[in-house]
Amino acid sequence: MAANTLGEYFAVTSFGESHGPGVGVVIDGVPAGIPIDTRALQIQLNRRRPGQSAVTTPRQEKDSMQVLSGLYEGKTLGSPVTLYIPNEDARPADYDHLENVFRPGHADFTYDKKYGFRDPRGGGRSSARVTAGWVAAGALAEQILQSVLPVQIIAWVSSVLDVSLSPEIQPENREQVDGNIVRCPDALVARQMIETIEALKQAGDSAGGLITCRIAGVPAGLGAPVFSKLHARLGHALLSLNAVKGISFGDGFAAVHKRGSEFNDTLINDQGGIHTLSNHAGGIQGGISNGEDILFQVAFRPTSTIQTLQATVTTAGENTTLEAAGRHDPCVVPRAVPIVESLAACVLLDLYMEQRAHRL
Amino acid sequence: MAANTLGEYFAVTSFGESHGPGVGVVIDGVPAGIPIDTRALQIQLNRRRPGQSAVTTPRQEKDSMQVLSGLYEGKTLGSPVTLYIPNEDARPADYDHLENVFRPGHADFTYDKKYGFRDPRGGGRSSARVTAGWVAAGALAEQILQSVLPVQIIAWVSSVLDVSLSPEIQPENREQVDGNIVRCPDALVARQMIETIEALKQAGDSAGGLITCRIAGVPAGLGAPVFSKLHARLGHALLSLNAVKGISFGDGFAAVHKRGSEFNDTLINDQGGIHTLSNHAGGIQGGISNGEDILFQVAFRPTSTIQTLQATVTTAGENTTLEAAGRHDPCVVPRAVPIVESLAACVLLDLYMEQRAHRL
Amino acid sequence: MAANTLGEYFAVTSFGESHGPGVGVVIDGVPAGIPIDTRALQIQLNRRRPGQSAVTTPRQEKDSMQVLSGLYEGKTLGSPVTLYIPNEDARPADYDHLENVFRPGHADFTYDKKYGFRDPRGGGRSSARVTAGWVAAGALAEQILQSVLPVQIIAWVSSVLDVSLSPEIQPENREQVDGNIVRCPDALVARQMIETIEALKQAGDSAGGLITCRIAGVPAGLGAPVFSKLHARLGHALLSLNAVKGISFGDGFAAVHKRGSEFNDTLINDQGGIHTLSNHAGGIQGGISNGEDILFQVAFRPTSTIQTLQATVTTAGENTTLEAAGRHDPCVVPRAVPIVESLAACVLLDLYMEQRAHRL
Amino acid sequence: MAANTLGEYFAVTSFGESHGPGVGVVIDGVPAGIPIDTRALQIQLNRRRPGQSAVTTPRQEKDSMQVLSGLYEGKTLGSPVTLYIPNEDARPADYDHLENVFRPGHADFTYDKKYGFRDPRGGGRSSARVTAGWVAAGALAEQILQSVLPVQIIAWVSSVLDVSLSPEIQPENREQVDGNIVRCPDALVARQMIETIEALKQAGDSAGGLITCRIAGVPAGLGAPVFSKLHARLGHALLSLNAVKGISFGDGFAAVHKRGSEFNDTLINDQGGIHTLSNHAGGIQGGISNGEDILFQVAFRPTSTIQTLQATVTTAGENTTLEAAGRHDPCVVPRAVPIVESLAACVLLDLYMEQRAHRL
Repeated sequence: MAANTLGEYFAVTSFGESHGPGVGVVIDGVPAGIPIDTRALQIQLNRRRPGQSAVTTPRQEKDSMQVLSGLYEGKTLGSPVTLYIPNEDARPADYDHLENVFRPGHADFTYDKKYGFRDPRGGGRSSARVTAGWVAAGALAEQILQSVLPVQIIAWVSSVLDVSLSPEIQPENREQVDGNIVRCPDALVARQMIETIEALKQAGDSAGGLITCRIAGVPAGLGAPVFSKLHARLGHALLSLNAVKGISFGDGFAAVHKRGSEFNDTLINDQGGIHTLSNHAGGIQGGISNGEDILFQVAFRPTSTIQTLQATVTTAGENTTLEAAGRHDPCVVPRAVPIVESLAACVLLDLYMEQRAHRL
Repeated sequence: MAANTLGEYFAVTSFGESHGPGVGVVIDGVPAGIPIDTRALQIQLNRRRPGQSAVTTPRQEKDSMQVLSGLYEGKTLGSPVTLYIPNEDARPADYDHLENVFRPGHADFTYDKKYGFRDPRGGGRSSARVTAGWVAAGALAEQILQSVLPVQIIAWVSSVLDVSLSPEIQPENREQVDGNIVRCPDALVARQMIETIEALKQAGDSAGGLITCRIAGVPAGLGAPVFSKLHARLGHALLSLNAVKGISFGDGFAAVHKRGSEFNDTLINDQGGIHTLSNHAGGIQGGISNGEDILFQVAFRPTSTIQTLQATVTTAGENTTLEAAGRHDPCVVPRAVPIVESLAACVLLDLYMEQRAHRL
Repeated sequence: MAANTLGEYFAVTSFGESHGPGVGVVIDGVPAGIPIDTRALQIQLNRRRPGQSAVTTPRQEKDSMQVLSGLYEGKTLGSPVTLYIPNEDARPADYDHLENVFRPGHADFTYDKKYGFRDPRGGGRSSARVTAGWVAAGALAEQILQSVLPVQIIAWVSSVLDVSLSPEIQPENREQVDGNIVRCPDALVARQMIETIEALKQAGDSAGGLITCRIAGVPAGLGAPVFSKLHARLGHALLSLNAVKGISFGDGFAAVHKRGSEFNDTLINDQGGIHTLSNHAGGIQGGISNGEDILFQVAFRPTSTIQTLQATVTTAGENTTLEAAGRHDPCVVPRAVPIVESLAACVLLDLYMEQRAHRL
Repeated sequence: MAANTLGEYFAVTSFGESHGPGVGVVIDGVPAGIPIDTRALQIQLNRRRPGQSAVTTPRQEKDSMQVLSGLYEGKTLGSPVTLYIPNEDARPADYDHLENVFRPGHADFTYDKKYGFRDPRGGGRSSARVTAGWVAAGALAEQILQSVLPVQIIAWVSSVLDVSLSPEIQPENREQVDGNIVRCPDALVARQMIETIEALKQAGDSAGGLITCRIAGVPAGLGAPVFSKLHARLGHALLSLNAVKGISFGDGFAAVHKRGSEFNDTLINDQGGIHTLSNHAGGIQGGISNGEDILFQVAFRPTSTIQTLQATVTTAGENTTLEAAGRHDPCVVPRAVPIVESLAACVLLDLYMEQRAHRL
């Protein structure tokens, strides 16, 4: 699997730089003859697009998606589907003064060390802008998946800096998540989060955040031991985001402090269906779905770009200081919600196809 | 990448069941002409082997490794290296009464749902026993890696149930980690952990635990955007363990509650070398190593097998109860230490080869 | 490796349909910092493009290539390079009457059986038009390869129907191959081939042809046993062309009728360099290059589209007859020359990177 | 896909050296719950094993296969199946005098150039002995394939040096092929072939040969455009044999000299089923099976080891001469018949699973 490809059966190859012609994906392994509602893809792209609200970056991008291949008369051909999003509000000039300096917290230094040559315009390939293609791919995966399974994937913001949502509160649907611009399914907590972000914006600072994701409707049996386990594949996909510093499933890190007698999810036959009385495992046993809700949490670090003066070094290695540049989000989690959902959809469809392939 | 293969350049394919003839790995992509000290591989296997101390399962396995291919006169041939560990103290009979019941917390139910047919003997393929092969592969990867880079990979136990080690305390070397049977580099905390585990053993219960891993000596530039990022690849590898419910890098989940001005690691030129003043990111920026220590934490759930009566269902779907069976560890983390190190070594070597391939 | 990707280290993913928006490739694994002369890529595209001469299809396509990602200031970034060729002279209407009939010799029937749904416009994905992207990728591979090795890849037309070139005659360079529109490096034989093709055109018929390819300057040691052998990888790449019905290396099928004492290539030390006195093996031993010229022959079937009335069946399964439609080449080999060179270049660079990856 | 792995869905990883402990395969992607008759696997191994008749090498190997993983109570578990064949009649001493010389026609020189270090015992990894594992894997693939499709794969010897079988003559079944030791389905021609091989043996020489393979019962629709085409995948697999110098499908190289009006296979509806009146294409259109018999020919070079004095060079680069050594086949095709069938079976099952994966 090449470094820019996610998945093997539903293989999403990502391409593009933040301030080049555009970003996109070529998706191989798309089943043939499936009607695709491209508007639904655009809707997820709109939930991720910059400039959508007061709590996001002011960079204005419509992120209008074009289909370059793989669809004919609204249906998939079975050939690679290419989804392309041209860059519109690119302002390379904004980054001229960054060509010779490494921004703290960014990938400038590490890209330079790996490649010896980089595109300084908005981080080039390391920009979160490349995730626009992933969201389009994930929205396509979700449509295909829902044509065969009653899967519902919902992510929401559960923490922003010191404001946290109680784990008991979960949204019913995406409409509820989108009920406010911070994408937290509780009006009161959401307001506090928004205030927090606006205060950070004022202070020219940024903050981390937490996203929780619930996947309902996945039948027992998805996931492939030993190195294509459902939680390992989800972990790989979500950790492919630069800003993600951790992921956990079910009770997650709290499991460290529990006894087996507390943690084991008891199996029962409830009117003909086998279920668990609790869900400490987050719907996964031995890397395979057990039919319960799949639950995981994703920890995002604070946005690297801030408006305060920071010490750093030049590409020539000299110590210097840097004032923020470029437009950015004070907190990335509101826009990251559809990205989390999309990556999860790609992994689920990939594992669904893995199962199909090996059940003769 | 097939489901039982880890890595692409240094490709480790795992095989074997807990109570079949044996477990092992075939490793493709091994460079030629490298002298291998197979005793060093056996040493890591011994750190993982069952029955090594009072805090582990009593199952006695020497885990004596055999080399079936790829070595000639003590050196690698460049052909696949096959490392094989025959099962010795297998007691399939212990599991006869489990053929028709799903053990809570185990993968019995999910394997049954995925495959429709399973090996009930000690979990078969879902047994942690298969990690013996991974440890052998990782020890080989470590030797090869250290022939070209001064890499030091050290993992240790940092929490067992309610006993936790302060993050400030880190071991110098593996000898220090092995200074006690629980593999915690602090004598006092270690004693408390051992007492905790012995109490759990008495109570027929189990507990979760935390392992911290530090990788020193990795130069800046390792990791391949966008889906072969260093933290994503490490996350994928570690989450390939059934018992792992979470992984985090650097500040991990604490990053959620931090400001960018606190979290950003300032770059400085310190006597000719570019370093960061802090290491909140855990040595990784944009999915690529930045030359600082790579730090991550792995959360393990409590061992599923416990000695108390549990409610569950039979394979026929009837509600029933189950008394524990088989031999097990009250807490897996002491034996998981070499597994964590081994998986990390495989990922690092794989990414090192990725870099070699693309630097002409 | 996904079905639309060629190579693992230099991974070329192909996309596009004959009469959709365009065709192209996304290339992952491109080394960073290499200056690319995009005009050289366009030159190879021009050698493949339709309407270039009297012996090719009249379909007019400039095949003007666009770079959508991976290059910055004329150099490779190390990120995926996307090369896109919009379709210009598409005439979908030409194919309206073909929507409900299977063209003999074409992939209409088999695509319908595989996918249950297809793009009838010019064969859609099965059209040779998709090779435009492969040629662009191969020209890029050739530039990168020649930045590290003195490799020279030259293909030429050696047979058209009953007119064949003597194996003794080989061109010095591509200019010589392009000395005539049929791309045969012998003026007299070329004239006969051209006359043959023009006669076929008059008769509304088509013919098969043979292309010979010589690769000089490949050092000994390229190719990876046991399933990435140089001849196996070249065979896979060339047989990826619909029209190719056979490939052979060195003496090829004549080897069947030879004795070991005739066929073995004797090794000698010729002024310090180890060479073979003969080259019956075509420069490959055990799947690895031996430093001699790599020689292979590729057999192309006659173009399927002909102007004579043919019996066939409708998509509904009824027997019917069909008059030719669409524009086509009476013989594909003149335009296939750069395709053969390009596929060979992709394979060689891929195997060169394989070698780099595993030589620490 | 690693260099020692064939296939992606049914992934066969090969390991072992000619005179090491043994050779074998680990097969990932095996469907679960399928009863396996291991005796049938041994039968194919016996058809390949050395010392089976007067026309093969005298090296005596029972090639008794062991199953190290993946089967339980005679059925597949869905986990990797490891098939292992210990080396018995290994005589490393036979090769002592070859450690410092490159045998003409063999891979000694190229392995040395690629790896800088090699196992001189019988060619080590480059020995045809490694195909024993492939045959076991192919026999397993065939059983699985035949559990879902009425596929019949039959290969036979169609040429040995100057003795050739008429293309019109095809065997009904393997019993007929095994009616004589040279595996040619015509008693008279077979006798001539046997005499030819015995004469070569007397003369201490060797000869090339041709194998024809017919695959019946493959439904239309198998094969994945554009780089997993049926003929490309078969070509890759067969060209993975060191001795194979060419492969062709249907009319093969004769297609070069045909007109489209002769070559196109006319489609007709014959009592409800769509068939072709001829089969010049060999059952494949656009890289996908069309439901007709799949026919291909494989050209084998003469065995490299011969008993006559040959000039060559030492590993130190000095010119020298060499007398034959080791035991060998004067002509490899009789023993290669099950290898051809096995590689074809692996490819077909892999593509069958590819189809399953993408048909939701």
